[in-house]
Amino acid sequence: MKLLLANPNSTEAVTRACVALAHAAASPGTEIVPWTNREGPPAVDSVYSDYMAGGPLATRLEGLAPRPDAVVLAGFGNYGTGAVKEVLDVPVVGLAEAAMAFATPLCHRFVLVTTSSRMIAYTEDVVQLLGFAPRCASVRAVDLPPIAAGEPAAEEVVEQLADTVAAARVTDRADLVILGGARLAPHAEALRRRTPLVVVEPVACAVAMAEALARLGLSHSKAGKFAPPPRPPHGVRL
Amino acid sequence: MKLLLANPNSTEAVTRACVALAHAAASPGTEIVPWTNREGPPAVDSVYSDYMAGGPLATRLEGLAPRPDAVVLAGFGNYGTGAVKEVLDVPVVGLAEAAMAFATPLCHRFVLVTTSSRMIAYTEDVVQLLGFAPRCASVRAVDLPPIAAGEPAAEEVVEQLADTVAAARVTDRADLVILGGARLAPHAEALRRRTPLVVVEPVACAVAMAEALARLGLSHSKAGKFAPPPRPPHGVRL
Amino acid sequence: MKLLLANPNSTEAVTRACVALAHAAASPGTEIVPWTNREGPPAVDSVYSDYMAGGPLATRLEGLAPRPDAVVLAGFGNYGTGAVKEVLDVPVVGLAEAAMAFATPLCHRFVLVTTSSRMIAYTEDVVQLLGFAPRCASVRAVDLPPIAAGEPAAEEVVEQLADTVAAARVTDRADLVILGGARLAPHAEALRRRTPLVVVEPVACAVAMAEALARLGLSHSKAGKFAPPPRPPHGVRL
Amino acid sequence: MKLLLANPNSTEAVTRACVALAHAAASPGTEIVPWTNREGPPAVDSVYSDYMAGGPLATRLEGLAPRPDAVVLAGFGNYGTGAVKEVLDVPVVGLAEAAMAFATPLCHRFVLVTTSSRMIAYTEDVVQLLGFAPRCASVRAVDLPPIAAGEPAAEEVVEQLADTVAAARVTDRADLVILGGARLAPHAEALRRRTPLVVVEPVACAVAMAEALARLGLSHSKAGKFAPPPRPPHGVRL
Amino acid sequence: MKLLLANPNSTEAVTRACVALAHAAASPGTEIVPWTNREGPPAVDSVYSDYMAGGPLATRLEGLAPRPDAVVLAGFGNYGTGAVKEVLDVPVVGLAEAAMAFATPLCHRFVLVTTSSRMIAYTEDVVQLLGFAPRCASVRAVDLPPIAAGEPAAEEVVEQLADTVAAARVTDRADLVILGGARLAPHAEALRRRTPLVVVEPVACAVAMAEALARLGLSHSKAGKFAPPPRPPHGVRL
Amino acid sequence: MKLLLANPNSTEAVTRACVALAHAAASPGTEIVPWTNREGPPAVDSVYSDYMAGGPLATRLEGLAPRPDAVVLAGFGNYGTGAVKEVLDVPVVGLAEAAMAFATPLCHRFVLVTTSSRMIAYTEDVVQLLGFAPRCASVRAVDLPPIAAGEPAAEEVVEQLADTVAAARVTDRADLVILGGARLAPHAEALRRRTPLVVVEPVACAVAMAEALARLGLSHSKAGKFAPPPRPPHGVRL
Repeated sequence: MKLLLANPNSTEAVTRACVALAHAAASPGTEIVPWTNREGPPAVDSVYSDYMAGGPLATRLEGLAPRPDAVVLAGFGNYGTGAVKEVLDVPVVGLAEAAMAFATPLCHRFVLVTTSSRMIAYTEDVVQLLGFAPRCASVRAVDLPPIAAGEPAAEEVVEQLADTVAAARVTDRADLVILGGARLAPHAEALRRRTPLVVVEPVACAVAMAEALARLGLSHSKAGKFAPPPRPPHGVRL
Repeated sequence: MKLLLANPNSTEAVTRACVALAHAAASPGTEIVPWTNREGPPAVDSVYSDYMAGGPLATRLEGLAPRPDAVVLAGFGNYGTGAVKEVLDVPVVGLAEAAMAFATPLCHRFVLVTTSSRMIAYTEDVVQLLGFAPRCASVRAVDLPPIAAGEPAAEEVVEQLADTVAAARVTDRADLVILGGARLAPHAEALRRRTPLVVVEPVACAVAMAEALARLGLSHSKAGKFAPPPRPPHGVRL
Repeated sequence: MKLLLANPNSTEAVTRACVALAHAAASPGTEIVPWTNREGPPAVDSVYSDYMAGGPLATRLEGLAPRPDAVVLAGFGNYGTGAVKEVLDVPVVGLAEAAMAFATPLCHRFVLVTTSSRMIAYTEDVVQLLGFAPRCASVRAVDLPPIAAGEPAAEEVVEQLADTVAAARVTDRADLVILGGARLAPHAEALRRRTPLVVVEPVACAVAMAEALARLGLSHSKAGKFAPPPRPPHGVRL
Repeated sequence: MKLLLANPNSTEAVTRACVALAHAAASPGTEIVPWTNREGPPAVDSVYSDYMAGGPLATRLEGLAPRPDAVVLAGFGNYGTGAVKEVLDVPVVGLAEAAMAFATPLCHRFVLVTTSSRMIAYTEDVVQLLGFAPRCASVRAVDLPPIAAGEPAAEEVVEQLADTVAAARVTDRADLVILGGARLAPHAEALRRRTPLVVVEPVACAVAMAEALARLGLSHSKAGKFAPPPRPPHGVRL
Repeated sequence: MKLLLANPNSTEAVTRACVALAHAAASPGTEIVPWTNREGPPAVDSVYSDYMAGGPLATRLEGLAPRPDAVVLAGFGNYGTGAVKEVLDVPVVGLAEAAMAFATPLCHRFVLVTTSSRMIAYTEDVVQLLGFAPRCASVRAVDLPPIAAGEPAAEEVVEQLADTVAAARVTDRADLVILGGARLAPHAEALRRRTPLVVVEPVACAVAMAEALARLGLSHSKAGKFAPPPRPPHGVRL
Repeated sequence: MKLLLANPNSTEAVTRACVALAHAAASPGTEIVPWTNREGPPAVDSVYSDYMAGGPLATRLEGLAPRPDAVVLAGFGNYGTGAVKEVLDVPVVGLAEAAMAFATPLCHRFVLVTTSSRMIAYTEDVVQLLGFAPRCASVRAVDLPPIAAGEPAAEEVVEQLADTVAAARVTDRADLVILGGARLAPHAEALRRRTPLVVVEPVACAVAMAEALARLGLSHSKAGKFAPPPRPPHGVRL
């Protein structure tokens, strides 16, 4: 099975980190095909960069040939997930929806940790839109530096994560944590040594869900929300 | 006061229709400055075209000089409204949020009519995201032909609208109707002669709200969701 | 345009303060006609006084001649807003509904500050009833002395407001504050110098919304909730 | 035990009908003391008449001497229930809250039938405000003539009720019906012969709940919403 | 009237404590018939023990002869309440549903205190399932030792309860407390001396509600959720 | 990987049907170990039989040796899923939670079809409890005969399913259907030829999710809701 792992931002290092996580999670026989959204922004850290990412992401993936068996959108947010589903027939899975779907049988309520305070509102909207609000205890943030500044030391990130999760456990009564983004995902293993909460790493969940959907012959419904977009007459491309 | 009326799609005829409605609604002394998203799609009739519209819309409006006193985004949906709010300081008002805000003191529950069945799910998500679900009796659709096919006869559209509204009144117990899009807005006056429900025309609401906000010195909060997007170092533009 | 500014309580000083705010907010050409509910209580600071206010308010406004072009009910609560809408055809706008409607395009979630702890539950009910709960981060209170004791020093009120807003920002993640009452409204300007949150002053919003509705020819729907009350036969007045 | 049965409207025939139902429901040893709100409207059939009822209701009951052991407010709505709770220490129970509370252990979801179409929105607000929306399948209406026209034949009312309930069973999947008002309550017994749904008669529920609260020494909390209203200084009565 | 007081767990001391509370609450003429679920677990302190309790509870009560006039299930949770309602025609009332139903007219929002931290999630599910979430400010816990260790000193329990309630008052703005379980119920009277909040003791509520339902001839609806369970053909017992 | 497929009811034919579906869905290398709840009822078609199933299910699975790598509970409901999670450390997945989790990335809103009208309320409670209500358009039912009567002809079941799904598409605007039970699951393939909606077969989803969780080293959180049940002292078994 060929699984396209599409990073909605343009930072190759993020793609590589996600590919490593994807390989660790994939079944034998699954080939991970990395793809970076070169025309996108270096990070999706605002609604603005969400839209900068989503336009080229949807356009390029629509034209992709040959088609993979399934697509993982390796970003934690919107960035046009619905647009990609409209233009593709193969299963398309975003990190946020996969992680929250996998969390539901594992906990009472989860805390979702995002990469900066300014993304809390954005992430709350994602949770609401995907319908997981009844299971979300809270959205909290660590504060990573801008992506171009390079990644901070792993210990520092894990320390911040551990503190945030401990607060969510006591104050919000969360019993599971979802790492809300490709930059946090690589720290899952280290965080597991620091908290009794279950730590959900979203790339693994998205790979597993995409594989499962492809294997089961399931894809998103074309009978409603994700129907192919109407085209203007005379072959004019949108 | 200079009010930029920004049509998120590329169809000049829609811009012109909205400008006419805006002029009818504007206070004396308000200048309506039309702007068409030339790089956008001819219509926003899918999530895909929403993202095709939102990218150039946000980029171009960010760079606009001189700045208007307020901006009306003359589309009924998302298409990057939040992105535009992030990059601008002047008030930015979308049709959907203005129409629903003005409807709240006027009714028990409103029906929102959109331009095609496939946009019902999309529009339900917009209602949910903006937080107006408790006041929304239902989202219903008439079925307009694709925008490139030209507009159908006004009588035909009004007939469809009147039927849809009558059904929403009886079945969903709506007591007010919001016309969900720039293509339906021009039919408000004719529809008022066909239904006892209050008919809310969204361009007028958005113009009135934008004027009011500018006059009162209010704009969107920069202390949270709509803070300016972080920029990568070295002046790299997203 | 003649705009009736109706204070639901009997305290002329409150009427005067609201008229000053209304003048500052009104468009040129709008005449503010003050009206005080002489038969009402000195303040609406309980459900009891809400009902003491609402009865005479609705009765007197029903009989008012000549009719104004629109009515602003200058109290932050219920006090029979729906009753007034039933008996009048011109637009009727309460402070709470106007302030929350204007807040929706400006923020992620607002904090609403009321004038005493005992009014928090009452105000939560108002928010719920008007359907704005999804956008309300919290209702908080400063503690003003009873209205008959005279107003405290402005600095003291602003100090309390600033502290309350700071707590709501950190704890409830609010990014906008609504001043929940006619006694707090005059402190908006001073509070703006103390907080990065957008401060919404409700009298200005209600005046702007009432003007806009009147100018656009919109009023509340008579096809449902706000239909004229049924009268007993033989002209018996309720 | 002395139970005051307070009819919020001025129609003695309604008081008498409620007293009959109350007697049928009361425990041995409970004395039903009827009270009619002479200064109120003949019926509460609008928000306007709700406020006309609530003002004198709260004022007169506040001054009532000697105090009964508990009060049943024999109307199905708001009409100042919260105001009465603020000014009294003995248990105060409205028909709507008692009927819905008793319905909760008896069904999956109830249909609430009110006396006219125009009261559906009003009643939906009551359900929402009291927090029973998750258990309410729908609010529906029969159409009774105005109260001054006299009561229609019982068979006719029961016929309308049976049809309404049958529709709610099939369409809304309700498995219990609450008769939403003092004019419908007397038809409970006849309706039981026409439907497999459980029929809840609200006067009986309110009497039973008021008796139980008084016997158990429970009354509404004075630590929050229903604290005594603040009084202006110098003995000025609100 | 014969009221069966059925303790879903096997601990006779709990049955006795509940019987004492039931006697204190019952009307003259009500006979309390104690019943202990001998085949159940010593306490319902997990979902596991909930199921261990519910199976024999439903089976034994189904076969009970002669039938009582009503049944109180003297545990605070699920433990098959719905199953018992399916197999019985007489009113069946659980502690949780009775306590929350009685709390609704008495407060703005209640805090529910359970017997151990691990039961908070379980209890939140009970609140959600019964539809009382809009009125529940929070679920909190004291930490009682396992039931087999014997009951701690009353002062100690009351101390813990008072602290928990004080926190709920300040932080969650609760104005009423429900004691969530048969082990906490006996401390209601002592707790009342320690808090201004109304204290709801659930056994008394359930007894009062069961008596009232039986007296009014009301029982759970057999037209939906609680219809008798289908039986396999040939008399095979499930 | 060893996957225990545990049928909560005692009907071997249902176990066999589920095993067939599980084999079709499982990855190479997954061994499906069938298990039938011999002490359970022949079907879970009521809350009563849910409790009859859940008790022995939890007890027997707790003692199972050797432990499988993951457990699929092959029933569509509660029947003690939480109890099994408390007593086991390996991943435990129920059909309902797996099917709804997999449906979330594939649709706007799903319809859930259950096996009899009387199970609609029960199933609505399951949806609510698992937190998927925002994504559930409706719960509908076909009407299968009792399980002991033998299965009806496949064509007949598929016909009923197709009609039900068509109604849900038009009336409830569902764009995906979940087959709510082990008796309906085998008809997924035939139903796919009858509807444009995506058909989700729950056994396949649960197998895929259980495999994925086991492979990723994830299991339910022991830090909250699913902590091991407390044991009474002295080795007394609950």
